[in-house]
Amino acid sequence: MSNVDIDPWGSSEIKFDEKLLKKFGLKKVKEDDIDHYFFKRNIIVAHRDFQIIQDCIKNKKDFIQLTGIASSGPLHFGHKVDIDAYLLFKKLGANSHFVVSDIDAYVSRENSKVPTLEKAKENAVELVAHLLAFGLSEDEIYVQSRKEPRYYEFAFEVSKKLTENEYKAIYGHMHLGKMCANLLQYSDILHLQLKEYFGPTPTITGIGVEQDPHARACRDLARRLPYNLKPPTFIYFLHQSGLQEGCKMSASEPDTAIFLNDSVKDINRKINKAFSGGRETVEQHRKLGGVPEIDKAYEMLFFHHPDTEFVEKIYKDYKAGKILSGELKKITIDFVTGFLEKHQKKVESYKDKAHKIVFGK
Amino acid sequence: MSNVDIDPWGSSEIKFDEKLLKKFGLKKVKEDDIDHYFFKRNIIVAHRDFQIIQDCIKNKKDFIQLTGIASSGPLHFGHKVDIDAYLLFKKLGANSHFVVSDIDAYVSRENSKVPTLEKAKENAVELVAHLLAFGLSEDEIYVQSRKEPRYYEFAFEVSKKLTENEYKAIYGHMHLGKMCANLLQYSDILHLQLKEYFGPTPTITGIGVEQDPHARACRDLARRLPYNLKPPTFIYFLHQSGLQEGCKMSASEPDTAIFLNDSVKDINRKINKAFSGGRETVEQHRKLGGVPEIDKAYEMLFFHHPDTEFVEKIYKDYKAGKILSGELKKITIDFVTGFLEKHQKKVESYKDKAHKIVFGK
Repeated sequence: MSNVDIDPWGSSEIKFDEKLLKKFGLKKVKEDDIDHYFFKRNIIVAHRDFQIIQDCIKNKKDFIQLTGIASSGPLHFGHKVDIDAYLLFKKLGANSHFVVSDIDAYVSRENSKVPTLEKAKENAVELVAHLLAFGLSEDEIYVQSRKEPRYYEFAFEVSKKLTENEYKAIYGHMHLGKMCANLLQYSDILHLQLKEYFGPTPTITGIGVEQDPHARACRDLARRLPYNLKPPTFIYFLHQSGLQEGCKMSASEPDTAIFLNDSVKDINRKINKAFSGGRETVEQHRKLGGVPEIDKAYEMLFFHHPDTEFVEKIYKDYKAGKILSGELKKITIDFVTGFLEKHQKKVESYKDKAHKIVFGK
Repeated sequence: MSNVDIDPWGSSEIKFDEKLLKKFGLKKVKEDDIDHYFFKRNIIVAHRDFQIIQDCIKNKKDFIQLTGIASSGPLHFGHKVDIDAYLLFKKLGANSHFVVSDIDAYVSRENSKVPTLEKAKENAVELVAHLLAFGLSEDEIYVQSRKEPRYYEFAFEVSKKLTENEYKAIYGHMHLGKMCANLLQYSDILHLQLKEYFGPTPTITGIGVEQDPHARACRDLARRLPYNLKPPTFIYFLHQSGLQEGCKMSASEPDTAIFLNDSVKDINRKINKAFSGGRETVEQHRKLGGVPEIDKAYEMLFFHHPDTEFVEKIYKDYKAGKILSGELKKITIDFVTGFLEKHQKKVESYKDKAHKIVFGK
């Protein structure tokens, strides 16, 4: 993407906090680090030690990818970014593993969200079916509750390497369930480097910037454990915002997000009522141009449409007033609907397989 | 044991804190509850809901026994009491399970004691060999690090049922490793009642009185979890004291305890230098009699010699000055040596099998 006209960072909604980046000591990603729109558009925005992974890609050396999603509710387009990034690094040669975090979802979420372990597993079936529909294969997916003993032992083992004070400084609480979720996540990210798995190997995991203290804890633990583990590389995603002004995507407020199981009717309604960067009248719009930086329909294309030239053209035309808000919404609806209709058919066909992966039968 | 002459409770060393019993709301055990010297001598001193287990024994109903030892160091005669009690309830018909707590030992003990998981497993091999020598069979022993996923999942699951405030009120700390050890212990004590194992069934576990807050937490969790678990029955052991005055048995001070792998030479030295209830001179001893209540050689017989008439006679004769301190020590040395020589031969023969149980090869 040329950096002349497109400046999504000018948006108040998706602006990335550069101060936070500096404070945490993260490196900014360069747009030509990897030839993919996530880099071009700075959707992957920052990193720790990404040069190690670049070197592996370039020189065809082994590296491991571990990404995961907690099965705490329905998937939305925010989750799709994580999955798309996963598919990118898989394509780039990563030994790739996707964790479906069912225990994590149960122990760390409020009862109002995940009341029972059974519910977390029902969500996990849904999640696995989506992953298979995205093109992941069964052998690269694991469910937290169906692992071998060493994985759990390692989650417990790690607990000895963090003091109460350190933990509290990182997370600000001593909530038992969340602590268990963190221990499982440490195990998720680090266990593949144990001798019982692939041995010490560079690994990459994508997270949100706000999770960096957790990432740093992982890296510290890698150094403290007696297994010569390589501190994991992290890449940091910019988060797509919610469909209304100033909100996040949230399962508890369905109209803030497009869910991956939304119907065509849902999609139409949600995008049509999404916050727009269009002007009050057609005349004003033609004259002043739209404001793509605050437009949720545009943001959807920005985060998900793979054709950068196309997105760039939309941006320019919208800004120039050539495309009206309703037209932009129509383009976005068509794009989202086109993707989801195909995706949902695949999901349906993978339900039985997903059930077997989660429940073993 | 007649209650005329023997009053071990008169001893300052092994006196049981009746106030603590009252404070915790524990029931005292009656000496004829079960026909065994642990009950006759009040070595099993208190309980919660033991009547449920008595009913199971009497009416041949299913009940489960779960006992465990953390593999944190060499076994001493204090551990033998737990194992003897385990064998007692096994004989009384319990569906019996003995957990070798290797993860617990690593995460909850100081590095000076258990520096690595590997060390905890080496200790576990030793522990398993002793258990086999005591007559336990392979199928009733499990090692924490070699369980099926549901066991670990359950340990994590339980974390959601305790708030930070409750936990801190019970244990007085938020130490991550100790918290993990507790979660594993909850799973140990409760998991056998899950539908994946034997379903809701009365269970019995023996512990020290000082562990009662932990026991109450287990019972609360049984009620809070959605599995209709029966609150476990606990029996509480009196602890045998250390061989010197006013001390506990401790692996870090070897002469405070007879270890199950001590040599005949060790046993002789340790018992000969153990704190005695004998008088300063033979004349005084013959005249005033010995004080068995403070005599560590006598205490060893009291906790371990199964023949109550014999122990009672020793008590009377020592008190009457008929037996000298050196003679009492000789009797104790012969008893301990006789037991350990046979036991250690068996232990040796079980080392390979124990290694296989702990390491799977």
